[in-house]
Amino acid sequence: MTNKKLGRQTAALSSPLALLSWGNVAGKKEGEGPLGNTFDYLDGDDTFGESTWEKAESAMQRQALALALNRGGLAVSQLDWLFAGDLLNQCIGSSYAARGQDVPFFGLYGACSTMGEGLALAALTLDGGFGQRAGVVVSSHFCTAERQYRTPLEYGGQRTPTAQWTVTASGAVVLAREGEGPRLTHVTVGRIVDKGITDTNNMGAAMAPAACDTIAAHLRDTGRSPDFYDLIVTGDLGSLGSQLLLELLEEEGLPLANHADCGKLIFDPKRQDVHCGGSGCGCCAAVLTGLLLNGLREGRWRNLLFCPTGALHSPTSAFQGESVPGICHALAITAP
Amino acid sequence: MTNKKLGRQTAALSSPLALLSWGNVAGKKEGEGPLGNTFDYLDGDDTFGESTWEKAESAMQRQALALALNRGGLAVSQLDWLFAGDLLNQCIGSSYAARGQDVPFFGLYGACSTMGEGLALAALTLDGGFGQRAGVVVSSHFCTAERQYRTPLEYGGQRTPTAQWTVTASGAVVLAREGEGPRLTHVTVGRIVDKGITDTNNMGAAMAPAACDTIAAHLRDTGRSPDFYDLIVTGDLGSLGSQLLLELLEEEGLPLANHADCGKLIFDPKRQDVHCGGSGCGCCAAVLTGLLLNGLREGRWRNLLFCPTGALHSPTSAFQGESVPGICHALAITAP
Repeated sequence: MTNKKLGRQTAALSSPLALLSWGNVAGKKEGEGPLGNTFDYLDGDDTFGESTWEKAESAMQRQALALALNRGGLAVSQLDWLFAGDLLNQCIGSSYAARGQDVPFFGLYGACSTMGEGLALAALTLDGGFGQRAGVVVSSHFCTAERQYRTPLEYGGQRTPTAQWTVTASGAVVLAREGEGPRLTHVTVGRIVDKGITDTNNMGAAMAPAACDTIAAHLRDTGRSPDFYDLIVTGDLGSLGSQLLLELLEEEGLPLANHADCGKLIFDPKRQDVHCGGSGCGCCAAVLTGLLLNGLREGRWRNLLFCPTGALHSPTSAFQGESVPGICHALAITAP
Repeated sequence: MTNKKLGRQTAALSSPLALLSWGNVAGKKEGEGPLGNTFDYLDGDDTFGESTWEKAESAMQRQALALALNRGGLAVSQLDWLFAGDLLNQCIGSSYAARGQDVPFFGLYGACSTMGEGLALAALTLDGGFGQRAGVVVSSHFCTAERQYRTPLEYGGQRTPTAQWTVTASGAVVLAREGEGPRLTHVTVGRIVDKGITDTNNMGAAMAPAACDTIAAHLRDTGRSPDFYDLIVTGDLGSLGSQLLLELLEEEGLPLANHADCGKLIFDPKRQDVHCGGSGCGCCAAVLTGLLLNGLREGRWRNLLFCPTGALHSPTSAFQGESVPGICHALAITAP
């Protein structure tokens, strides 16, 4: 059998997969941001009708997946596999969302890069001939993340200037071997990169080297130049991390003129007090399943490189003096 | 392209993959158990030379993977992909172990089923034509798990009779498209099953219905009867969960005469005070990479169904009154 790998990190799909349908839900603050009208459902008080924030996050995943399935005219029983993840300890956002749903389940942990990891694994599985359709769903919730990673909301902790704001959102995609939609053609899987950043309130800086590593690997493996893409979109580097990424790529001889970052796109820095921008699994997932995939379908862009980024630390690793390892996966998507 | 799926949950590999090499490390108590001589390295004080339990767990993964690679005469750069997971919040055991290793990385969360999830995804990826070799490594550590899921060791909490003992161990496998070794032929991916057990000290009962669901699905999808296998080995149901599994399968008309459970095999209930048995990602991983794969290579068994089980809850979900969802993946492995 032929090897469908290009270089060290990239998988070239033997036939492009369709991003058949997608859906998302988001919270109040996200709805008030510049992408508010790209979200399918906005919750007025971020509870999504549940009694705890963690249960709200599971409800978000269930709802985003249901929206994506509905739009594709599919039932969950028509998914061959479900790939899901979130930021919570033991990924309970995903497990409780998928409970009782009749679908073979893979739980992932890739921090904020999880939408990239899920799309990558779904693509490798389907292109390998295993099944027809896979769902990918991820989420993050500001209130669950604050409670778990930082301080309880009631504490009213002050945020540092480099901090980012965890997005309350969930995004779901149905990937399929047949059907209409934007096409996923290549997947570049990230390595873990750690340049020694120990400030967990500066995750943009911690993740930028991983984004640089993966984007450079993708271009090297595919032989493409940055201008092949109309847009190279990172996950949640935020304003500081984005600036660092551009500097790092410039040093590699890869100046980007077409970079955007979901963490910068999702909030308005003038009107919304989010410091360096948005973050969380739900950040790039909600931007992908709104602005980006809608834009590809409508012909706004032709070729997109979607590069979710993640910081693979925990409060415990930070307390133990560890630096923050980053990862980034890149997915090449073309207009239908 | 043909669909290589059988039924709802099973992937039939187009050509069996070799379990090329494997390695494991374990702690003191595990070394004193009945499988002590099947572990490659035993640490005298469970620190693995590190200053914190969490760093010890990362060291265990690095060492287990290095042992597996060495035995296969491979460098980490010859792995196309690494699949890794553990029980820690944000899976830091795996992320810090893989940091700085030049290998595309997929982080998984499947609780104690993670070795099954990793082997399944590695198999789907390689059989799909993406790369030649993949590593799978998982771990658990008694001291990190107690601190995080229950009470700090210093507290000296009393254990309930249905409790299990988290195994301090890591196991690694190199899966390859070419080479000698036991063969992985089928992968049955589990659904999340929750029958309403809310006692987090009775995880055997919480996971047994998922094990029943997946074993029944595997037999249905492949058309095999239980006696096709010389051994059907669950992950860490322990003594109570194993008994429940046999009762549940009997009700399904699938009596098992050839069942074993890694959680029961790894400790000696007469000499070692572990109540219902061992648990943790490292439990079935260490039994697989010792007793089971060595036994297959030596002709002790011909056909094995390896069924790691996981409980997908967290302390937070338990505090919020939630029941414990279970999952189980099944892997059909034949002697070389």
